[in-house]
Amino acid sequence: MVFSGFVYKQLQKISGKSNVTREKEELLCYSYDSTGKSFLPDAVVFPGCEDEIVRILKLASKENIITIPRGAGSGMTGGSVPVKGGLVIVTSRMNRILEIDEDNFVLKVQPGVIVADIHTSVEEKGLFYPPDPASSSICTIGGNVGECAGGPRAVKYGVTRDYVLGLRAVLPSGEIIQTGVSTVKGVAGYDLTRLIVGSEGTLAIVTQITLKLLPKPFAVKTLAVVFDNMIKAAKTVSGIMKETIIPRCVEYLDRAALDLVKDHLSFELTKETQALLILEVDGDDASVKRDAQRIEHLCLSYGATKVLSASDPKAAKKLWDARKALSPVMYKIATNKINEDIVVPINKIPDLVAFTQKLQEKYSLKVVAFGHAGDGNIHCNILYDKSDKSQAQRAQNAVDELFDVTLRLGGTITGEHGVGMTKLKYLPLEIGTVQLELMKGIKKVFDPQNILNPGKIFS
Amino acid sequence: MVFSGFVYKQLQKISGKSNVTREKEELLCYSYDSTGKSFLPDAVVFPGCEDEIVRILKLASKENIITIPRGAGSGMTGGSVPVKGGLVIVTSRMNRILEIDEDNFVLKVQPGVIVADIHTSVEEKGLFYPPDPASSSICTIGGNVGECAGGPRAVKYGVTRDYVLGLRAVLPSGEIIQTGVSTVKGVAGYDLTRLIVGSEGTLAIVTQITLKLLPKPFAVKTLAVVFDNMIKAAKTVSGIMKETIIPRCVEYLDRAALDLVKDHLSFELTKETQALLILEVDGDDASVKRDAQRIEHLCLSYGATKVLSASDPKAAKKLWDARKALSPVMYKIATNKINEDIVVPINKIPDLVAFTQKLQEKYSLKVVAFGHAGDGNIHCNILYDKSDKSQAQRAQNAVDELFDVTLRLGGTITGEHGVGMTKLKYLPLEIGTVQLELMKGIKKVFDPQNILNPGKIFS
Repeated sequence: MVFSGFVYKQLQKISGKSNVTREKEELLCYSYDSTGKSFLPDAVVFPGCEDEIVRILKLASKENIITIPRGAGSGMTGGSVPVKGGLVIVTSRMNRILEIDEDNFVLKVQPGVIVADIHTSVEEKGLFYPPDPASSSICTIGGNVGECAGGPRAVKYGVTRDYVLGLRAVLPSGEIIQTGVSTVKGVAGYDLTRLIVGSEGTLAIVTQITLKLLPKPFAVKTLAVVFDNMIKAAKTVSGIMKETIIPRCVEYLDRAALDLVKDHLSFELTKETQALLILEVDGDDASVKRDAQRIEHLCLSYGATKVLSASDPKAAKKLWDARKALSPVMYKIATNKINEDIVVPINKIPDLVAFTQKLQEKYSLKVVAFGHAGDGNIHCNILYDKSDKSQAQRAQNAVDELFDVTLRLGGTITGEHGVGMTKLKYLPLEIGTVQLELMKGIKKVFDPQNILNPGKIFS
Repeated sequence: MVFSGFVYKQLQKISGKSNVTREKEELLCYSYDSTGKSFLPDAVVFPGCEDEIVRILKLASKENIITIPRGAGSGMTGGSVPVKGGLVIVTSRMNRILEIDEDNFVLKVQPGVIVADIHTSVEEKGLFYPPDPASSSICTIGGNVGECAGGPRAVKYGVTRDYVLGLRAVLPSGEIIQTGVSTVKGVAGYDLTRLIVGSEGTLAIVTQITLKLLPKPFAVKTLAVVFDNMIKAAKTVSGIMKETIIPRCVEYLDRAALDLVKDHLSFELTKETQALLILEVDGDDASVKRDAQRIEHLCLSYGATKVLSASDPKAAKKLWDARKALSPVMYKIATNKINEDIVVPINKIPDLVAFTQKLQEKYSLKVVAFGHAGDGNIHCNILYDKSDKSQAQRAQNAVDELFDVTLRLGGTITGEHGVGMTKLKYLPLEIGTVQLELMKGIKKVFDPQNILNPGKIFS
């Protein structure tokens, strides 16, 4: 698609000359996301308000221009990658926190707000927004809504979907819709809010998000638990959940993951160490103390070799820094990685973990597994070099086998990253034809011209 | 619509002669719900399994027969009332708990299971299914899914939507769909699960429900707090929430409600008593004790005249019995009632409560207000006699004004009862034309012939 001068001028008129570009150097910056896959857009626009988005989409539907909403581009499945070219609409200028309603525990934000800024702003007021994806320091809340982001605290607090009360959004036609409520409850009509959450920018462009907040927990305690055997660690996870303790985080790191971040660790990585669990409990002082003790005993009874308790927030932060560094660090040791955020039932984690080990041996590829074990969501990273044809083929086969085993264990191919472009061809493994046709029908209701982020989820 | 002998014989063939009826005496029993509105169906069928529903719906779409799914008929907005006649499909025979997966905190049930049976079954195993609508001893989980039922515990634990992980359902065409996951997380494709939850049986007939469970709380404490002024009670509600205590229930009863259940109360209803709050906290022993004390102090500081603490589960049950008796008891004092489950932001409850008082005086009608104040969800009951034309008109005007004020306070016209038939004409007050068209478009994708529960939500 090549933009006509007329269309480009219209865009300049709508958002201002300095907020539209078609310089190749700049287009490149908006061509990719965390998958590393890159497709050049034809132009990029940075609207400053909802009204500009309305006018941009009216223009786009009139001229039949493909449009792709984009937050920070930190997605893991290519949700914001312009696979068919077109106009990328970046929300970075719409980054205002509109209202923190302390009386009603409700937050209103624009889509371009960085998630970490939400955390800081509400925690200052004794409030709490739980979803905290690993990329929270750079990712936007709009992107989180688009992909239904999760993160480590989902085991206790749920995912983005559970906090979105209502939305303002613009349809591809340029019409504004307002969905959901500003209250905790509401069931008037079909649940358009949760239909748009996780729809990966294919149904509407979100312009305002109403979020539910919680009171900030009084106390938090972080534990690092070392194992000499990854199966023991995996069994401990379901053991903890069965004891009816719900930690707010249960993160798993295998040895390969630990090797990658060993400089960040607050303990020595001995030869025997095969897995680490990072566990975090919150609540009031008494319950946190009690739960941490119960977890420590339980871990030792399951064969943990060491339980380290973070003595203060700084020590806890150090542990989390290691965990959060994992994704970026991986690019250092391999040219390419496939990161699959599969989920299995909690009591199947030992099977999955054993399988990742086998996968590594079978295909002679490095497999790094870590993630949110408390809800069965393991990020399975297969490292390879794309330029080596045999490696690329082996990586592909390994992914196929991984999804097959995941589904046979009763799981799903994506817990929080979405389908985007990279899992598109796998979706039919999990979702039957009838459901896919329903989804395509819904897409058509919202976007009859198929101009909004085409080529995602289902072709 | 009159059934041909052929169609009726086919139904008998599918579900057995004893499981189909068109006897007028029996049709009457399936003609109404808790609204009291009654429309005769042409026939009623009681399928025993999903396959029968598939065959019934295939027959219905071939013969263009209107079908209406029905649980226990305890709905509050006529969701299961056959307003256009047709075939009522009652799920009462599909009442099996299929699996309680203790390892993974997951429950699989058929739609006809009574909600109280779910509570009993999972609590025996130390697990917890929080949603608990007032009708839980008779209502079905299928109906709860259809309407996205709430109940008093929603203030801490959320509503039905928050516990439905996945569904099996049959489309009007007779095709089976499977949505969502059996794991805590999952974002593969559009969220059909939560689209069907709360769709009031207009999109598909649910045949199996996968629910998330929690560990059962260690301890529960119930408090009854008496006020001599309803505004003081309303202000206390937002006061408690602001203190960052999240009780699991915060129920409000005004004087009129208390009068209705005075025989059930465990304290003397003096002339001064104007409102009651029932508050319940759960957690471990220490936090329950601490939270109960904090709440007691807070209530007294807001002007409560008395705080009664239920000494044991029996005393707590007595308090709840009074609360649960409210809806049925109301029919004793008035021929008709309009029960509106409006929601306002928590800090607007005092305004709403003051308004209900004014409404009563303005229209010379008894207004009974009670409900889930902790999430701003007040059940406002306007009592009248339908046969008195002036009363009926005044009641209608009062409802119009109530909805108008609710929306101006930033609320919604339905927190948990749904739109059904009774709020159909009010939906456009809250939901704009563009959103309504989207909903109608979605309905068409699922049900192109419009044979599944027509005349609900939007015409």
